[in-house]
Amino acid sequence: MPPVSGVSILPVVGLPEIEAGADLAAMIAALEPLADGDVVVITSKIVSKAEGCATELDGVIPSTFAVEWGERWEKDPRVVEVVLRESNRIVRQIGPVLITETKHGFVCANSGVDQSSSGAHDRILTLPVDPDASARRARDRFAELGVRVAVVVTDTFGRPWREGQTDIAIGVAGINPLRSYIGEVDPHGHEFRVQEICVADELAAAGELVKGNTSRVPVAVIRGFEFEFDDEATMAPVIRDSSRDLFR
Amino acid sequence: MPPVSGVSILPVVGLPEIEAGADLAAMIAALEPLADGDVVVITSKIVSKAEGCATELDGVIPSTFAVEWGERWEKDPRVVEVVLRESNRIVRQIGPVLITETKHGFVCANSGVDQSSSGAHDRILTLPVDPDASARRARDRFAELGVRVAVVVTDTFGRPWREGQTDIAIGVAGINPLRSYIGEVDPHGHEFRVQEICVADELAAAGELVKGNTSRVPVAVIRGFEFEFDDEATMAPVIRDSSRDLFR
Repeated sequence: MPPVSGVSILPVVGLPEIEAGADLAAMIAALEPLADGDVVVITSKIVSKAEGCATELDGVIPSTFAVEWGERWEKDPRVVEVVLRESNRIVRQIGPVLITETKHGFVCANSGVDQSSSGAHDRILTLPVDPDASARRARDRFAELGVRVAVVVTDTFGRPWREGQTDIAIGVAGINPLRSYIGEVDPHGHEFRVQEICVADELAAAGELVKGNTSRVPVAVIRGFEFEFDDEATMAPVIRDSSRDLFR
Repeated sequence: MPPVSGVSILPVVGLPEIEAGADLAAMIAALEPLADGDVVVITSKIVSKAEGCATELDGVIPSTFAVEWGERWEKDPRVVEVVLRESNRIVRQIGPVLITETKHGFVCANSGVDQSSSGAHDRILTLPVDPDASARRARDRFAELGVRVAVVVTDTFGRPWREGQTDIAIGVAGINPLRSYIGEVDPHGHEFRVQEICVADELAAAGELVKGNTSRVPVAVIRGFEFEFDDEATMAPVIRDSSRDLFR
């Protein structure tokens, strides 16, 4: 491996409030001149907005379970209902928080449903339906605009055992989310303890360092990260099969 | 919040094999000119080496449990014994891997014990005894050398539900590991869904992007990250109390 040079994390400043139908890639490229090999890290919230992944609470009829849960924890039962609809199953219930497995297979709080920043009190944002496809569409659009980049769509998840949330990847395009060290040995002939690094999650986390959650900077560009393009990449290899999982 | 400028992640290239007693901070500062406000991200492996956190397997007498577990999974029972000694308790057993809570309160595979890269086949590295203290000593040494920085000591942990490992923080000095958004509201008056970001883990993850696990670059410098110094910071607020934890 050649000596690694530095990596830059650049905030993309100046995006307006995103409306349904927005051409995010063009808006990003207009604000930050991109280079081949950049990784564009996009907060899922603006992807959801651009794709119209919002639910009007007026039209939601909560189930009996959602009503009872909502009453018990002083939550809007319609929001609880949307959380349940976005889930494959409930993994744990921690006080008012439902830890669910989303339709995509991600395990997170409240199916990633976001009642803040939706632009209206009676509307809630849900995660993009297919975040890999969202990333792929953005990547294709960047290519049309003349740059060959990778795209990571992120959300902010909690973790068991550790307080505080971090940004992680929920969709990728152009980059394998995992970097494998399997079979490689150290100078002493030992196999590495580390076998696979989830670089997609590390890129997501790095992006958050300049994006922030209140600063209205929902996009970061990571420049100088060494990787090979993978046109077929998806998040599938990151989603642990439940047969390998003792915590679900 | 003022507009955020970019963040740089710089690899510190050229460190030799680290021996017990090494003055890591001086070695790092000699290779990479540091600036006030930098965050120095140091892989725990070289901290363990510098602090002599290694166990000679010749002197380890495994318990009956370690012998039986080792026979069952074809593991050296002396290594199993060290993993158990480094733990408060076993959280799960997944095939040959023991998910343990370390003496520090971290939950990870095999108590963070590392049989690779220890420099000898009959010696294994354990995590630093007090990684916050390790970070603090390094930070104090950097201060003696004339720069006011923060330090994050990292290790590479797996996660439930997601394949691939990422670098996370196990020790900090000079920086609060959590950034709180509690009580802040978005432009629509909603409280943020995100309440606390574990920036220490995000800095650790960002550092890994230039360090790599095979490239022998165990240190990264993160420059341009906006934070306020916290001289009393430790990892304690990140370690979730088991009363708040449904996955232990």
